[in-house]
Amino acid sequence: MAKRTFIKFTFLKIDPAWQRREGQARAQDKRELLAACEDYATDRPLRAYSTIGTRGDCDLLLVSQSPSLREIHSFHVVLAQSGLAKWATIPHSYLAMTKPSPYSDSATRPELLTSEHSYAFIYPMEKKREWYGLDATERRRIMSAHIETGRRYPQITINTAYSFGIDDQEFVVSFECEEPGDFLDLVQELRTTESSAWTLRDVPIFSCLAMSVGQALDALDGAATARTVPPIPA
Amino acid sequence: MAKRTFIKFTFLKIDPAWQRREGQARAQDKRELLAACEDYATDRPLRAYSTIGTRGDCDLLLVSQSPSLREIHSFHVVLAQSGLAKWATIPHSYLAMTKPSPYSDSATRPELLTSEHSYAFIYPMEKKREWYGLDATERRRIMSAHIETGRRYPQITINTAYSFGIDDQEFVVSFECEEPGDFLDLVQELRTTESSAWTLRDVPIFSCLAMSVGQALDALDGAATARTVPPIPA
Amino acid sequence: MAKRTFIKFTFLKIDPAWQRREGQARAQDKRELLAACEDYATDRPLRAYSTIGTRGDCDLLLVSQSPSLREIHSFHVVLAQSGLAKWATIPHSYLAMTKPSPYSDSATRPELLTSEHSYAFIYPMEKKREWYGLDATERRRIMSAHIETGRRYPQITINTAYSFGIDDQEFVVSFECEEPGDFLDLVQELRTTESSAWTLRDVPIFSCLAMSVGQALDALDGAATARTVPPIPA
Amino acid sequence: MAKRTFIKFTFLKIDPAWQRREGQARAQDKRELLAACEDYATDRPLRAYSTIGTRGDCDLLLVSQSPSLREIHSFHVVLAQSGLAKWATIPHSYLAMTKPSPYSDSATRPELLTSEHSYAFIYPMEKKREWYGLDATERRRIMSAHIETGRRYPQITINTAYSFGIDDQEFVVSFECEEPGDFLDLVQELRTTESSAWTLRDVPIFSCLAMSVGQALDALDGAATARTVPPIPA
Amino acid sequence: MAKRTFIKFTFLKIDPAWQRREGQARAQDKRELLAACEDYATDRPLRAYSTIGTRGDCDLLLVSQSPSLREIHSFHVVLAQSGLAKWATIPHSYLAMTKPSPYSDSATRPELLTSEHSYAFIYPMEKKREWYGLDATERRRIMSAHIETGRRYPQITINTAYSFGIDDQEFVVSFECEEPGDFLDLVQELRTTESSAWTLRDVPIFSCLAMSVGQALDALDGAATARTVPPIPA
Repeated sequence: MAKRTFIKFTFLKIDPAWQRREGQARAQDKRELLAACEDYATDRPLRAYSTIGTRGDCDLLLVSQSPSLREIHSFHVVLAQSGLAKWATIPHSYLAMTKPSPYSDSATRPELLTSEHSYAFIYPMEKKREWYGLDATERRRIMSAHIETGRRYPQITINTAYSFGIDDQEFVVSFECEEPGDFLDLVQELRTTESSAWTLRDVPIFSCLAMSVGQALDALDGAATARTVPPIPA
Repeated sequence: MAKRTFIKFTFLKIDPAWQRREGQARAQDKRELLAACEDYATDRPLRAYSTIGTRGDCDLLLVSQSPSLREIHSFHVVLAQSGLAKWATIPHSYLAMTKPSPYSDSATRPELLTSEHSYAFIYPMEKKREWYGLDATERRRIMSAHIETGRRYPQITINTAYSFGIDDQEFVVSFECEEPGDFLDLVQELRTTESSAWTLRDVPIFSCLAMSVGQALDALDGAATARTVPPIPA
Repeated sequence: MAKRTFIKFTFLKIDPAWQRREGQARAQDKRELLAACEDYATDRPLRAYSTIGTRGDCDLLLVSQSPSLREIHSFHVVLAQSGLAKWATIPHSYLAMTKPSPYSDSATRPELLTSEHSYAFIYPMEKKREWYGLDATERRRIMSAHIETGRRYPQITINTAYSFGIDDQEFVVSFECEEPGDFLDLVQELRTTESSAWTLRDVPIFSCLAMSVGQALDALDGAATARTVPPIPA
Repeated sequence: MAKRTFIKFTFLKIDPAWQRREGQARAQDKRELLAACEDYATDRPLRAYSTIGTRGDCDLLLVSQSPSLREIHSFHVVLAQSGLAKWATIPHSYLAMTKPSPYSDSATRPELLTSEHSYAFIYPMEKKREWYGLDATERRRIMSAHIETGRRYPQITINTAYSFGIDDQEFVVSFECEEPGDFLDLVQELRTTESSAWTLRDVPIFSCLAMSVGQALDALDGAATARTVPPIPA
Repeated sequence: MAKRTFIKFTFLKIDPAWQRREGQARAQDKRELLAACEDYATDRPLRAYSTIGTRGDCDLLLVSQSPSLREIHSFHVVLAQSGLAKWATIPHSYLAMTKPSPYSDSATRPELLTSEHSYAFIYPMEKKREWYGLDATERRRIMSAHIETGRRYPQITINTAYSFGIDDQEFVVSFECEEPGDFLDLVQELRTTESSAWTLRDVPIFSCLAMSVGQALDALDGAATARTVPPIPA
């Protein structure tokens, strides 16, 4: 069996009070979080995404991967010491693990979310318990039609990770592509497949803009693009 | 296919502590948010609404539209730097996209929410999964009766946007009209149509008062209409 | 058709930190909110209720009515500027409108909640979607039995308002009476009527003590009835 | 009919920031709340319980009883003025009333929760609406088996109060006993009775330690039992 | 009957503001919490786990056990006085008790969670009410298949505790093992057993890293592993 990997989705929401800190303090806070990420990314996969403008309950997503759960833990210990983390909460958190799919012959991938695409669409998923009462052949038949539909959108990369018993959901699925409209069309088309009727929960759905950690941090206080409004003369 | 447009509904709730700031600071905070909006609106659609008096969980709605999700993102980055945003949370957020309706021959509209009406009524919507198991002819038949009822209220403009896979809901629907009572009557009448039975969720419902960004900001601290209560002599 | 009226239920929760302000500041804060209410009530209906002791998530209910939604909005703009509102949140908010009942021949009432009774019991209500699939005669038959039960409690006044499309619920119902036990007995008896089975949601339920705005404000910091506990000598 | 009594369950959660106040301020805050309780308890029933160690969302339960809802209100007005209340929220609140049971010949009890037992187990309860569609004889038959099971645990005292129309639940039930394991065994055994299938909701469940108001307050900052950890030398 | 034991799962979330305190204050805060734990653990079982990196809503789990609920209470009174607790909330809390299983001949264990394994997976559980309507033989048959599947994973230790009537869930189950992937595979395999269809709720699921109290506290501010980022020269 291929080596399995943990994948951790950590969504951060920054306290609005942080935005009221002065510029140098904010810069230092961001630099510390960036350093924690760069250190981890030296030899392990780390991806960053911004959710500013797509959701209201989080600003930033960090995806860390490692075959060792202790390493995922250690990364978050270090992360929590960074200045920015001291003004942040984690409103959404998903822990998952790779494993071979029962519906595909592909080997377990050593790393997920490896594309260069501009967007990732991510959500936790659970199936109705009745699904698991179907016999394996029937489940395979239903999943085949589902997979078939997905294949008609070759421009979209799918990543499936498993959370049974290690987090609240059963799966965390993530899709990478260049055009959000393509993914919207795929999901709408999948609604009419038989497999869709067996879904219990597939929300929240996160539309994520791929970028470097540094860019995602700069998006938090828009240093690069800030407009200047002259203060009122006293 | 007509060009598709993203539409983003961003509901803001202002921290009561902001109301305790002094007048000049509040004025500056509002001016900065207004500047961010005016900059965006130079060549892209931006609408503002107040929800003060109609809901308790938000004060202000900004609706931004663009064919580019990166532009929606950038707008919110700039917005977040404005003084007022530093005292605000986003308790409700809906991302959607236009596309041709399978139940109508109309082309995709390049822009939604374009009327001059005084009110907009907005809600996210999801249908029961069983709906998507009906065959297309049956769905078209059921939707026709629904649309027919809507046509008897020509004074109400409907805007439908799609969120499959890019946000938690399937649709964001918004209705523009002059008399809230007309819309209430339409929705009550629609309850008895066959399509209504296939709705899974259609809340929260936002009653929104159309106004300029400046007016919606002034409603936050009522500068124009403030009553003066003389302080108690010491 | 009789003129229709908007009715807005605004429940306020005061931040415990406000209670820690000194007495003069609290008195000024309350005076400002009272002034906003008195101004509105000059020529429009405004009722106040205290929920202290009956609920934990709100302290005060203000019910404002007007045929114009813009006036409801303006009232809340002014309200928000008052000192006390700057320490308050609105954990519950219901917007509704009067209209003729399909199950009664009574005209639309120009104003609701007009009794002199000591208590009001208020809740948002939604029926199961299947209810609206019954034919009108069947619905009228079921409602008649419901109404019949209510008539056996003539000491209780019922007020029904409609929220289809303008807020999350379908109805806001309020009952006024002198003895809470009478209302409890009525609701328990209604459980066995056929109509009860068609209710989807009828919570939260607010037990509200009728009083003047001034009294409801004084209940917040109990100025009139405060016990004095001597401070510890240093 | 025996006189009916209101019973109010007020669960308090103390802000962790209060724990950071200095000892004399905390002592004064507690003394004020104690005074409010002692004043009420002069001629009306008041019981206190600690939930520290059994739940995470509340620390203290005060149960006040009176035939007058205005008195319950007045008690909470006075309570809110005490120093400790200014650092507290009320995360759970249940208002109920006594009345004769339709399934028993016992008279309405003038006061609930009168035992000397060490523990009380308290929860709000609602039955499925279908329950109320059963005919009265059938309901009586099902309840008899339920009551029969309870009788085999004579060491447990049951108290039932009614909330139809005056709060979100239908009932508030409370059980008093000396051994929590006995109550756990009873509840597990009741799961197999027919009546259990008609329960819609019976959570949250509060395990409460009976004590005097003073003891429950002292448990908040453990004055009596505090360990001293010497501060680090500078 | 073997002596029964209470087991209390107390999940702590530290306020991000605590992370902004200076190092000596944090060290003192942690030392006080450690002292409270060491005192309790002198003659009673106490286990600590970190959830940093596996969840977003809590940081630390303390599991205390005692045959006396008053002792569990007293421990939490002392705990609340420690410096760190004054910056903490308890977002998840589960109270349970051991008792003999109706599906096994094993005696009640005097203590749970006694393994040396690196991980514990913990969740509250409730079965559908219909489960309890099955006759005892049928339930035993279904549980046997469930237990049989578990036995094929001898490297995983299971601990079952009962919460009927003393907390919101019916059971708290905890699994100890060395490889999270093994537990994930077991849970996924259990989905296809008949017993799985009778589960009403089995979330939230906590992936917990076993460690000493001191280590779990050090993970909060990563004293040992902190990276130093030089501050910006002024």
